[in-house]
Amino acid sequence: MTLRDLISPEQRREFLEKLKKIHLNNIGKTLMDKNDPIHCENLIGGTILPMGVAGPLKILNFKFQISNYYIPLATTEGALVASVNRGCKAINFSGGTTTAVELVGTTRGPVFETAGIKESLKFRDWLDNNFSFLKKGAEKTSSHIKLMKLGTRTNGRYVYVRFYFDTSKAMGMNMVTIATQKIVETIEKAAKIKCLSLAGNFDIDKKPTWLNFIFGRGRRVWAEAIIPEKIVNEVLKTTPSRLYDVWLAKCLIGSAMSGSLGFNAHYTNVIAAFFAATGQDLAHVVEGSLGMTTTKILENGNLYISVYLPDVMIGIVGGGTKLIIKKEALSIIGAKSSSELAEVLAGAVLAGEISLLASLAEGSLAKTHDRLGR
Amino acid sequence: MTLRDLISPEQRREFLEKLKKIHLNNIGKTLMDKNDPIHCENLIGGTILPMGVAGPLKILNFKFQISNYYIPLATTEGALVASVNRGCKAINFSGGTTTAVELVGTTRGPVFETAGIKESLKFRDWLDNNFSFLKKGAEKTSSHIKLMKLGTRTNGRYVYVRFYFDTSKAMGMNMVTIATQKIVETIEKAAKIKCLSLAGNFDIDKKPTWLNFIFGRGRRVWAEAIIPEKIVNEVLKTTPSRLYDVWLAKCLIGSAMSGSLGFNAHYTNVIAAFFAATGQDLAHVVEGSLGMTTTKILENGNLYISVYLPDVMIGIVGGGTKLIIKKEALSIIGAKSSSELAEVLAGAVLAGEISLLASLAEGSLAKTHDRLGR
Amino acid sequence: MTLRDLISPEQRREFLEKLKKIHLNNIGKTLMDKNDPIHCENLIGGTILPMGVAGPLKILNFKFQISNYYIPLATTEGALVASVNRGCKAINFSGGTTTAVELVGTTRGPVFETAGIKESLKFRDWLDNNFSFLKKGAEKTSSHIKLMKLGTRTNGRYVYVRFYFDTSKAMGMNMVTIATQKIVETIEKAAKIKCLSLAGNFDIDKKPTWLNFIFGRGRRVWAEAIIPEKIVNEVLKTTPSRLYDVWLAKCLIGSAMSGSLGFNAHYTNVIAAFFAATGQDLAHVVEGSLGMTTTKILENGNLYISVYLPDVMIGIVGGGTKLIIKKEALSIIGAKSSSELAEVLAGAVLAGEISLLASLAEGSLAKTHDRLGR
Amino acid sequence: MTLRDLISPEQRREFLEKLKKIHLNNIGKTLMDKNDPIHCENLIGGTILPMGVAGPLKILNFKFQISNYYIPLATTEGALVASVNRGCKAINFSGGTTTAVELVGTTRGPVFETAGIKESLKFRDWLDNNFSFLKKGAEKTSSHIKLMKLGTRTNGRYVYVRFYFDTSKAMGMNMVTIATQKIVETIEKAAKIKCLSLAGNFDIDKKPTWLNFIFGRGRRVWAEAIIPEKIVNEVLKTTPSRLYDVWLAKCLIGSAMSGSLGFNAHYTNVIAAFFAATGQDLAHVVEGSLGMTTTKILENGNLYISVYLPDVMIGIVGGGTKLIIKKEALSIIGAKSSSELAEVLAGAVLAGEISLLASLAEGSLAKTHDRLGR
Repeated sequence: MTLRDLISPEQRREFLEKLKKIHLNNIGKTLMDKNDPIHCENLIGGTILPMGVAGPLKILNFKFQISNYYIPLATTEGALVASVNRGCKAINFSGGTTTAVELVGTTRGPVFETAGIKESLKFRDWLDNNFSFLKKGAEKTSSHIKLMKLGTRTNGRYVYVRFYFDTSKAMGMNMVTIATQKIVETIEKAAKIKCLSLAGNFDIDKKPTWLNFIFGRGRRVWAEAIIPEKIVNEVLKTTPSRLYDVWLAKCLIGSAMSGSLGFNAHYTNVIAAFFAATGQDLAHVVEGSLGMTTTKILENGNLYISVYLPDVMIGIVGGGTKLIIKKEALSIIGAKSSSELAEVLAGAVLAGEISLLASLAEGSLAKTHDRLGR
Repeated sequence: MTLRDLISPEQRREFLEKLKKIHLNNIGKTLMDKNDPIHCENLIGGTILPMGVAGPLKILNFKFQISNYYIPLATTEGALVASVNRGCKAINFSGGTTTAVELVGTTRGPVFETAGIKESLKFRDWLDNNFSFLKKGAEKTSSHIKLMKLGTRTNGRYVYVRFYFDTSKAMGMNMVTIATQKIVETIEKAAKIKCLSLAGNFDIDKKPTWLNFIFGRGRRVWAEAIIPEKIVNEVLKTTPSRLYDVWLAKCLIGSAMSGSLGFNAHYTNVIAAFFAATGQDLAHVVEGSLGMTTTKILENGNLYISVYLPDVMIGIVGGGTKLIIKKEALSIIGAKSSSELAEVLAGAVLAGEISLLASLAEGSLAKTHDRLGR
Repeated sequence: MTLRDLISPEQRREFLEKLKKIHLNNIGKTLMDKNDPIHCENLIGGTILPMGVAGPLKILNFKFQISNYYIPLATTEGALVASVNRGCKAINFSGGTTTAVELVGTTRGPVFETAGIKESLKFRDWLDNNFSFLKKGAEKTSSHIKLMKLGTRTNGRYVYVRFYFDTSKAMGMNMVTIATQKIVETIEKAAKIKCLSLAGNFDIDKKPTWLNFIFGRGRRVWAEAIIPEKIVNEVLKTTPSRLYDVWLAKCLIGSAMSGSLGFNAHYTNVIAAFFAATGQDLAHVVEGSLGMTTTKILENGNLYISVYLPDVMIGIVGGGTKLIIKKEALSIIGAKSSSELAEVLAGAVLAGEISLLASLAEGSLAKTHDRLGR
Repeated sequence: MTLRDLISPEQRREFLEKLKKIHLNNIGKTLMDKNDPIHCENLIGGTILPMGVAGPLKILNFKFQISNYYIPLATTEGALVASVNRGCKAINFSGGTTTAVELVGTTRGPVFETAGIKESLKFRDWLDNNFSFLKKGAEKTSSHIKLMKLGTRTNGRYVYVRFYFDTSKAMGMNMVTIATQKIVETIEKAAKIKCLSLAGNFDIDKKPTWLNFIFGRGRRVWAEAIIPEKIVNEVLKTTPSRLYDVWLAKCLIGSAMSGSLGFNAHYTNVIAAFFAATGQDLAHVVEGSLGMTTTKILENGNLYISVYLPDVMIGIVGGGTKLIIKKEALSIIGAKSSSELAEVLAGAVLAGEISLLASLAEGSLAKTHDRLGR
């Protein structure tokens, strides 16, 4: 008898417990709500991440609305929630953060093979000329999907096409896969060009890439704040000049010396915790790590600081967000759209940058980790 | 009254529930074992991820031991566990996967500022000459830490130093931060060189970088298998040649066209699920996304396939692995060292690559996601 | 007396000869035609590069015209001309190379500074809305220039704008600088946004970048050929399979292992020699090094091979092409447009790739260099 | 009759002149010294580049010697020599530039194929254990070569090995190719591992790569100067603060936004002109484009500025430097070693950076190009 023959989480746990002489009580007890639409094969139970909450964080968003948000963060890393919280405090004392967001689109990038250069370029033109036709077919696969545009790069016999979709409130990777499959079938039939792979790493999904950095993917988001010198001193326990020096040496020159696609202090920490809490796909943490923090000491001595994340894959419906416990976390934020959610994320990331850069500037990083850390 | 004044998870939940008019029942009920050493500030409860198990996977590891492993994966992405499972099946029918692992070291990379080039280079020499002295001091901060080596790059007034530590069974980032803080204090005192930032993005922690790709970080791991043509046909429903074509067009040429640091199909999916299940730091998923898959059709028509992950940050003690539910997941694997755990991860990643590449080759990706997906 | 006070090449040479006790006879004798429009300050004479010629190379170009081209190459590297020549021979025996070309545009990318995110995005919209207005002004600076489009990226207070120009038969970097200066003045006046730098490394001129790889710059060019197995054996002294293995291991996997933007064997060798011969700006050799070679063994056993160069900055008038000796070299090629010249370059690059890959495959590289080399 | 049948430059020119109905008088008259060891096949004559001279430039080099250097630059780009000259003037008024240099080694990086991971790692150990043996054999191929070290990266069946050589006064690429060929033959015989390609793009020669940026190649060089505020104002017509802002927005943030490996203003312009004048391999201009400029406004208001070039491939003997006209240009500099030559280059590059950044800061770039340009 093997695991493959078993049909319930209980049976699978029992099998593993006997085989390995172990206990899986906690995994077993971690049952999700029975109404949860769980999509995980060979289920044996669940795992848990502790969840804290940071905030409130005052945000002036792209639609010129001011709101205060609480930010749920699921993490096992001590000091992270405290750090974001301190950043929120500094931001709030400074009047809040201004954010902006822009839909780039969820992308799928199949690769096709032709007989050579001429056919590749002809196919590219065909794609441009048949956009409406392809769009019509793609949008039949779901009422929540719009094909926004396509982009093509040809390289010898290879033609890479990037389809950009508006997937409404969902991150939408699955929808997009199905819609692109439809497009590919249409192309193979109508243009007689063979698709080598539905996903040709020109999407490019869940990998750190310059294509996504430069073109963006999902949503581009920005957040900024001007922290008065006094707040830098009192809340962040450092000076604008010291914090600026750390930023320059670390986020710009250090990142350049390392060949990095992340010119920031620690976007990923905040993104991973935010994604885990709110039911996003954890593999998309990779893409969220791209981006750049900037700082400037203004003429009046205050500190300007901003974050720019070109590749945020996020949604408020679909995927992991369907789980009731994730819905609860989303309700803490209360975002009515994926764009609003992305702006809150950007604000949280900004708070995290402010706090860590300040901590490095005042030299307290090791101490904090010693106290709050693992 | 604000969130900051509240002292228990219950109070915080109640506060948020009233303020936002929401219910946080599931978050509240997701209590961890009371003996859990939870490191998460402003705790309001926990979040859950469904956990499935793939395997068994037959591994011939670096120490020439053969074992069968079950692999816990926590995910909300439908089809992922099934996909890894199918890869395991193909590997097992082929005699198993051979893996190898190598400790690179957990790194911290502070940045120092000097008066200019000459002093920078003199300081670099000082570091080399005082390695034993620094090592001695660093290793006093923990009995689990060894300073392995250091590497230096100078750029004008900036000196970036990368300290490599063996942190035994732990991933060790916190240990390493504390040990490096000690080193920095010694340097500032003995060499009279100012440290600008304890973490100068030359570590480089939680960012996708060529430095980590080329030098490695944490552990380098490899896994490979030779899948007989018959197994490719029968289990994977495709041919070696078709799978090879997808790999070449997607993982190599497609990744190159996109400026990617990941020349693979979807390492990140497996790594994120494995990390979430076993208590690793989810922000390190970013680093795990680096690496390259290779395939080759051998003279007898069988398919050689390998994965190479240069930057795996992983541990079996410390951090999230201390939570009892994570210990349970680790007990399913039963790895006795971080290196063994890394080899199992590499095997699981290989299984994931085999399955997804086959799925793309046979054109079934969209169908599978439609059936098992969100 | 210093060099600055001297007004003729003769005086400067005499000054240096006395000061350093050296002879500069050859530099002095290397006088260009007296009608030459030399743009080099503090002139002391000229330097020489030996020039050879490869070809003929049979090209079927984008306009479906077949021509045979001779290719002048100026180099001090032994074996280079012979290598390109061998590639031409293999191509001709195979029926010639098919090429294609596409104008991307010569770009300038100034950087502006705003008060923050909102103003940055508002400015971006302003640019889009005022494109015709800016275009009109820019095109007044030269009758040879057309503003094709602009692209913007904002990052906090920074706004990077990339202006794409059609500069007709010239490479046009100077024209573009002057036109962009005009645009910048208009912007500063009309939009009240400060320009920090006319050239903000978003052009991006003379640096190896993913922006140029992905978006292209100057012209994108392609060339391909199908070399029958027999020709591979007889002319190239190797087999399609051996050549393919070298290509895969070197140009794809090796380049990926090295974090390269050039996935090719040696584009730069051919480009540097071609640029030196034909009066192109030698600093643009950097950009020409980007790109990718692909090969495939077709079902009939023949070898498909292609080159793709996304960033070719080239012209047939202006700059160094004005020198009479460069005009002579250009007359050997006889290209009537920059696009045609770029296609010839791509053909020459393809010939170089074929020859070097074959040489590596048959293991003769070292021998050849020993015989023909320096 | 074809070009291949002709045996003299005169015959080849005559053939081309008749065929294309053109005149090649200047190319024909550009005869090099008859004693020149010309390595260019199918020779038809030579081409010319105008040569100017910048300087003097006062350098305090790594061996604490102060010298004044004149710098020959061959270019067709108007304003370049004047620009470097202005930079030299600013540097000299500031007491000169401090430079440093370090030999990394000229590298060759063959790729080998094994049966899989275990054999790859075993082979890596074999290489480490047989270093002296390989070194001995390699050094028999030339009395000017020393094998310094080797580095290995394995990826499945692929093993990439990077051999670092000290090639004395020569850039040495040919020497290194021959020595590596010898090593490869030894390996194939003694270790029974097949070499796929003598050059596996792990050298990595003439391509822009992170491997070379991070590890260096040829020589690493640095140069710096402290320009008093007064000199910035009077000679450079701008302010330290304005120049700093341009540097930050262009060389750091702009380069990062573009995915660049060059974090500088225009290293390549100076390197191309210096290489053309002094007989270096023009294809190596690509590697010289890597590197980073830093600036800082010191507490007293003066401007610190430095350049760092990690990948300078340069020599004073061999290759193009054998041509008498190149020897003359080298005699203007008078460097006694390749390291000294590299330091002069770094000084010239620094001068170029200072001048261009100042020009962009004062907004005069377009005007200068309009006046001096093409």
